Order: sequence, then structure tokens, then C-alpha cells
Amino acid sequence: MRYELHYWPTIQGRGEFVRLALEAAGADYLDVARGPEAEGQGVSAMLRWMDGPDVVHPPFAPPFLVHGQVVVGQTAAILLYLGPRLGLVAKSETQRLWTHQLQLTIADAVAEAHDTHHPIAGSLYYEDQKPEAARRAQEFRELRIPKYLGWFESVLQRNPKGSAHLVGARLSYADLSLFQLVEGLLYAFPLAGRRALTQNPRVGALHDCVAEHPRVAAYLASPRRLAFCEEGIFRRYPELDA
Amino acid sequence: MRYELHYWPTIQGRGEFVRLALEAAGADYLDVARGPEAEGQGVSAMLRWMDGPDVVHPPFAPPFLVHGQVVVGQTAAILLYLGPRLGLVAKSETQRLWTHQLQLTIADAVAEAHDTHHPIAGSLYYEDQKPEAARRAQEFRELRIPKYLGWFESVLQRNPKGSAHLVGARLSYADLSLFQLVEGLLYAFPLAGRRALTQNPRVGALHDCVAEHPRVAAYLASPRRLAFCEEGIFRRYPELDA
Repeated sequence: MRYELHYWPTIQGRGEFVRLALEAAGADYLDVARGPEAEGQGVSAMLRWMDGPDVVHPPFAPPFLVHGQVVVGQTAAILLYLGPRLGLVAKSETQRLWTHQLQLTIADAVAEAHDTHHPIAGSLYYEDQKPEAARRAQEFRELRIPKYLGWFESVLQRNPKGSAHLVGARLSYADLSLFQLVEGLLYAFPLAGRRALTQNPRVGALHDCVAEHPRVAAYLASPRRLAFCEEGIFRRYPELDA
Repeated sequence: MRYELHYWPTIQGRGEFVRLALEAAGADYLDVARGPEAEGQGVSAMLRWMDGPDVVHPPFAPPFLVHGQVVVGQTAAILLYLGPRLGLVAKSETQRLWTHQLQLTIADAVAEAHDTHHPIAGSLYYEDQKPEAARRAQEFRELRIPKYLGWFESVLQRNPKGSAHLVGARLSYADLSLFQLVEGLLYAFPLAGRRALTQNPRVGALHDCVAEHPRVAAYLASPRRLAFCEEGIFRRYPELDA
């Protein structure tokens, strides 16, 4: 049965973590909000799930996945659901839990990256909170990026199956998500991001390895991969990098 | 086998969501960092798991749970692990996923509540970011609390088994966590929190119902329940409420 991904159609955002998993697995999926309204797709199809009074499990926000009778929101919960179905997580409960814990930590880093340009209010423009953004971005660059990537470096270093993957000896959705986090950091903070990768070479190597995965590479080169932009989570405002 | 919870010993914080689940289930657990150093407990026991170079699954931050060979961090992942073991989640995969999705949304609300007093930097004091905190708290009071509690109200309203619980007809860890979120909001934002409960009566009723659960009530009246304070996530700074 085809997976239906619902997410804002013009940005990578949090939807990208789900897209990467679906693409890396070669799954049959529809990116609903990017489809034509005339065929019942588009943003209005997405909003019907969010605003429809009869939806028993209404998503709080995009992304969410519709698969048969299942409607699931929250990026990490979507990947928890998809992981076993796409072969992107190990079989044992302990390894699945560990993979999920890694994903949740990536989600925390992503939320903090967002707040570098929106420290005060998501309802205001970046231009309305620039001085505050400069202060928050400094903390993010100097303390948080090193803490997050340093932790993932130690996870890779301690993996009993080697440092090619975060969990075990095979690709998992956490690897794909760490790739995307690094991509985003390199886009938004090219100076600080590059510096952090120099300090954490295993994270950099995993990023490069994921980029070369045949299906991921094909996806990244396709029109299905949206470009980073200043409407998304990772935004390049040069004044926030150093 | 006894559960070992590791969390900062003087605050409710994120550890409280785990404590509530353990207490509501009457589980045998040790709150390690609150125990005596002389018996191998205390904060130093917690830090050994975080800083020990031989820990294969190092927690990024407290809280984390140690249970036999399992070490699991991230509040939502801990509850994902504990839920079935403590009888605090339904049996079906769909209901478990939905319960987890609710928990992740509560976690997002908790992170935003924290950032009302620390919008700029976790490494600075509140006193170093008071004007920014005032702006962020205004957005949180006026837009975010209503959005979050309004969503939970609609979830309760749509529950096919009735609005006494978030999922199905029995207590789940999501109910306990929503209770704790409401407790925290009422502590930190008594005016805005009370107003939001008036708008969302099912959320208020669930909060009151959880507080009357015999084991929860016994816990809340015991010395094991720490008081809210201005070192935790939910802080009462009257200038941030209105």
C-alpha cells in the first residue's frame, strides 16, 4: 500500500527526514501537498486531515503520514512506524529503542537550529528578532553544535560494529537523519558547521557515506529534492554564522 | 528487576514524566541521583553513565533509565519502553503509536515552556535574558498554550471511547504526562494557565481525574514529589504571566 506523506510543499523542513527514509528504501509514496489540486492533492488535501472535524487522530502539525487506516504525525513517530517496514532499523527491541533515542536527539538539535532565527516567536518574521537571533546563534554555534556533534561522534566511536553507522552494521533511519542534520548545519552555518565536522570526523564520514548511497544520491540529484531556502528550518543568514 | 531512574535530584524537570509513570504503576524503582553517595548512588552515579568512556549507549542528557542491560535516554523513548511493561499503554500498534505521538507533542510544549525563561541561551541566567523572555512568554501565553491545549481538547473530544482519557478507555502514560504539563502551566502561568483550562474543560477534567488516581494522589502527597521551583522547567516569574 502506498505511503502518503503530507508536508509543506516548498521546503525541506521536518518532512525531509521522512522523505529521505522513503527514498533510501525505494518506497512507493506520494508527496501529497506537492501534487495537483485538480487530482485531490495539494495543500488543501493536507489541511483536510488537520482541520477535518472527523479525523480521530488529528495531526498537531505537518509532517504526517497516512498509510491505510493509520494517520501518524511527529517526525520521530513516523520514522518509528516506517523503520521496520522500510528495513531501516534493526530487529531487536534494544536496537530499535536506541535508534529512536538517536532520532529524538536529532529532533532536539533541529528545533534548536530553528530557534536560532526565531528565538522569540514563530509568529514573527526573522527581521523582527534579529538582535535576539544573533545572541542565540552564538550560543548554538559555540556550545550546542559542538555538544550535539561531539555526542554523535562518541556514539559512532563506541558502536561495537564499527563507526560506519550509528547503530549496528547497516544503514538506519538515524543515519539518514544525521546526514540531513549535517546538511542543514553546513547550509545555515557553513563556517561553524565545517569547523564542527573537523572536530568530529566520524560524523563527517557518515554524512559523506550517506550522500553516496545509490538511492539517496539519485534522490538528491532529482527534482524531488527541494533546495534549502530561507523559509525552512535551516536558513543561511550570514550574520548568524562565524 | 528494579528500574533505575537517573535525573537531577532537586527538580521535577523532565524526570517527573518518568516518575509519574513509575509511581502510577506502583513499580519498584530507584531514583538514583537522590540516593546516598555512600551507597553508590547520588549525582556521581548518574554522571558515571553519562561520562563513562565504556558506555555503549551514552545518554545525551538526563533523564535516563537503566533496566538490566538496557540504558535508554530521552523522556519519550523511556516511556515508549516503560509503557507496555507498566500497563500504561494499549496493546495495538496503532494505539501505541498514537500514545507516543501525544507524548512527543507534550514534549514539544515542555521545551517551549522552558524557552519562555531561557529564549536566548541555556548557559545564561534568566536575569541575563529578561526582556527577551517577556516577549517569548507573551507569544507562549497568547498563541502556544491555547494551540497546545486546544489540540488536546479536540483529541479528548474525538476519542471514540469517551473523553475521560486521551487514548481508549484506560489510563496511559500520555494522560499522566498531560497532567504534568497542566500542573506545570498552572504553576508557571497561573493566569494564562487557568484561562486556557476554562477554554478546554476536558483537559482540566483529565488533569483533576489523574490527580485523584489513588497511587498518583499518594505520590503527590509524599516527600518523593519534589516541589516546583525556579531551577526547573516550569518557573513562576510573575512578570511572565498575564
